[in-house]
Amino acid sequence: MGALDDLVTEFAKLPGIGRKTAQRLAYHLVRESGDRLTRLARALVAVAERVRPCIECGHLAEGERCEICLDPRRDGGLLCVVEEPSAVTILERAGEYRGRYHVLGGRIDPLGGVGPESLRLDRLVERVSGGEIREVILATNPSMEGEVTATYVQQLLIGKGVRVTRLARGLPVGGDLEYVDGVTLAHALTARQEIG
Amino acid sequence: MGALDDLVTEFAKLPGIGRKTAQRLAYHLVRESGDRLTRLARALVAVAERVRPCIECGHLAEGERCEICLDPRRDGGLLCVVEEPSAVTILERAGEYRGRYHVLGGRIDPLGGVGPESLRLDRLVERVSGGEIREVILATNPSMEGEVTATYVQQLLIGKGVRVTRLARGLPVGGDLEYVDGVTLAHALTARQEIG
Repeated sequence: MGALDDLVTEFAKLPGIGRKTAQRLAYHLVRESGDRLTRLARALVAVAERVRPCIECGHLAEGERCEICLDPRRDGGLLCVVEEPSAVTILERAGEYRGRYHVLGGRIDPLGGVGPESLRLDRLVERVSGGEIREVILATNPSMEGEVTATYVQQLLIGKGVRVTRLARGLPVGGDLEYVDGVTLAHALTARQEIG
Repeated sequence: MGALDDLVTEFAKLPGIGRKTAQRLAYHLVRESGDRLTRLARALVAVAERVRPCIECGHLAEGERCEICLDPRRDGGLLCVVEEPSAVTILERAGEYRGRYHVLGGRIDPLGGVGPESLRLDRLVERVSGGEIREVILATNPSMEGEVTATYVQQLLIGKGVRVTRLARGLPVGGDLEYVDGVTLAHALTARQEIG
């Protein structure tokens, strides 16, 4: 069947969605009524039409600037550098950070042939050179590519008069030693903290 | 953010998709380009506009009748009764069955307050009374509700001059005895087959 097969194919292109799950989703929507199908379709079109990268930080925005850049209560002296918009959402959910963000739009991946030129680095340097920022927090992923990217950004910011930090490495809170990998454990040991 | 949040909310309504996965899907689509968003939107609208239950068997169709009802090579003497259109797809994938289907559009669920009146049973009786059908295969789910539904349909077809069968119960092929539940094992024992 053309239309239904097309929908299954589109769903199956999504990350983590196999052919069987795609089929289940499509059938579910059909069973639920045409209204559900069109509501999801409208939501997709709205995102396609309205959501753009924030011209300031690169996070997703519905206007020129994202909500975080527009929020006057955020600390303009703190800039957290992340790879993707999804990381902003994750950090916002943690509820700890009150500064602003800079989304690179990817990571340097030497093996995958992705160099620094594809990242929003010029704008980062511009923002840091503006003078308001006193600390840049590197929050790239704790992967090989994330480390390479963090190191590159750190080098780039040398001599700009800002403090450059990165997220602490260590044991996940609530985790079990048994499930922590060796590299994390080594980090946790090296960066061990005084108590009492 | 309105549009993106709306999309996440719509995704999160899908079965098996939590808020986090919904967010990951939405961000993925945004990153991939607006084209991906609109392609999925178009596929959804096409299904909403074109897919309807087949007036014959209740399976999903793009015209009045589904592809299986329209296919002259299918054996019109065999009718397989299933709960949902998804079951048709699963049985077709097995590639063993060459007859036609009848989709009930649900199951009798006494505890959930779903009675036989909400199922496509009148049309089933009509089809069976047509005279062409010689065997009705009950392929409802092997759940309590599926059993109740199968028993109801079987009663309904008494005296209609058709053979009524149901899918065999037993060990799943390629399965391990250790993971088979007691009820299935009891079925497999009762229905044990002569070999050699």
